[in-house]
Amino acid sequence: MTTGESPALTAPPGLPAGTVLPVDTVGLLEGLTTTRAIRRYTDEPVPREVLRTILFAATRAPSGSNRQPFRFVVLTDGPKAQAAKALIGQAARRVWDAKRQADGYDRGSGGVADSPKARTARALQRFVDGFERIPVLILPCLVRYREPTPSEGASVYPACQNLLLAARALGYGGAFTGWNFAVDAELRALLGVPDGTFIAGTITLGRPAGRHGPVRRRPLAELVYEEEWGCPADWAVDPAGTRFTTAGPPRPAAGSLGSAADPGPAADPGPAAEADLAADADPPRQPRPATVTGRDEGPQR
Amino acid sequence: MTTGESPALTAPPGLPAGTVLPVDTVGLLEGLTTTRAIRRYTDEPVPREVLRTILFAATRAPSGSNRQPFRFVVLTDGPKAQAAKALIGQAARRVWDAKRQADGYDRGSGGVADSPKARTARALQRFVDGFERIPVLILPCLVRYREPTPSEGASVYPACQNLLLAARALGYGGAFTGWNFAVDAELRALLGVPDGTFIAGTITLGRPAGRHGPVRRRPLAELVYEEEWGCPADWAVDPAGTRFTTAGPPRPAAGSLGSAADPGPAADPGPAAEADLAADADPPRQPRPATVTGRDEGPQR
Repeated sequence: MTTGESPALTAPPGLPAGTVLPVDTVGLLEGLTTTRAIRRYTDEPVPREVLRTILFAATRAPSGSNRQPFRFVVLTDGPKAQAAKALIGQAARRVWDAKRQADGYDRGSGGVADSPKARTARALQRFVDGFERIPVLILPCLVRYREPTPSEGASVYPACQNLLLAARALGYGGAFTGWNFAVDAELRALLGVPDGTFIAGTITLGRPAGRHGPVRRRPLAELVYEEEWGCPADWAVDPAGTRFTTAGPPRPAAGSLGSAADPGPAADPGPAAEADLAADADPPRQPRPATVTGRDEGPQR
Repeated sequence: MTTGESPALTAPPGLPAGTVLPVDTVGLLEGLTTTRAIRRYTDEPVPREVLRTILFAATRAPSGSNRQPFRFVVLTDGPKAQAAKALIGQAARRVWDAKRQADGYDRGSGGVADSPKARTARALQRFVDGFERIPVLILPCLVRYREPTPSEGASVYPACQNLLLAARALGYGGAFTGWNFAVDAELRALLGVPDGTFIAGTITLGRPAGRHGPVRRRPLAELVYEEEWGCPADWAVDPAGTRFTTAGPPRPAAGSLGSAADPGPAADPGPAAEADLAADADPPRQPRPATVTGRDEGPQR
């Protein structure tokens, strides 16, 4: 467990430690529209007060019938935590190696050092290579009360999003990954996760290091319909300064891949394996300090 | 479509309308820890500028490989929107009627007008009875690129949470429900939702009416483990003033139900059908105005 204390989170005189939450320095809309996946961290441990606030925010999220079937296993530097980091890290490198080849990250523009594709590949390689040094992993779990349904994620993934947003509120950053799916059985045995409980992903967490580009998404008009499927909404206009990206991983040229290079569903870390990955392809840029106002400069960070 | 304009969202002089996002009046941590399901609305339409900001925030959420497979169908007052509201509203009443009986909402303390159980039942009854008058429904959809997996929700439900938080940021409120699952085929036909796209829920949206209690969850120590499953984290301490609830719907007495009263999986609206439902059982209390600071009073609203 980490033992550091963040001065900003110290309780005011007269109140016992741990009874209050820190004062906000980031606005709600600002946080929602500018929080991006962070995959580079300093080695600084995450203080317990920070973990406590982040997990408190995560567990305030809604769930079906307010059942609160979400549980969070926090892994810092104990022996099982280190073993879990190694297990997931090995899976991450294995899956990424296969994906790098299958998705053609090194072909075409991938050979140009400053291309978005090459930058994405470098960011991912660095992420998996240093996986064991990530200060904190958090495994969000779903305690099932019935057979799996496609909508069961509605009772755990909103809490994951709260968690990542709360990290941002405190000057930390993280990413949602699915590398754990490739070592699910080993991980359950190591950590004693019971049958009937779904390990829903792996959230990485730490103090951001280096430079991170702004959030990039598809234009709003491609994602929002009105009145029926496919009908554009004339109000669905991106704010000035919005940065865009195409969706998903690079598309390899048709016929350029042998199927042997495809890691297949069993090794696939799941749809959120590289959440927000394309954003890593952004050119280096120093994040501005967080402020609650000043939205008019544009929403991207 | 609604046509109102919110003065607070007007662009500054010199900039065309719609190019900026509004200034934050709610802090990020404050929003994360105090946003609750809102199921009572005024009849006031939701201005287009508000919808635009809410949907912009929703679509900034992360998704697997940044594929952004989420789409949002916004239903206000057009003919298909009204038909969809009626369709989902009928399903809601049918499913709730069965659930009210199956879960024993009217037995035991349910017969005492001011009991949590009776208040929850009244809130739900009012919600479904007035369903067609809810100003806006938003159907979050997931465009699948492969067969369903338990983790696919990681690419749509974080965006739903962003959406609800953004509503809060602008003085609106909403709830995530799964009533649509009971009329999935009819809804797809009505709105032209293609095969291979999952309608992942129904989000209701409007200007809050009446009084709403604070967020209530289980104690943090029941939801957070450290180092391995089941191990308590000594830092997992709720802030002073946190309000609690037990999890999920009321438990009917064993053997008190005939199976005929159970609507069964086909009619079950899904695990998020009544997200945050227990919070409706709170005693009436006037929400305080939102402020960015002032967190030390405690996180609950």
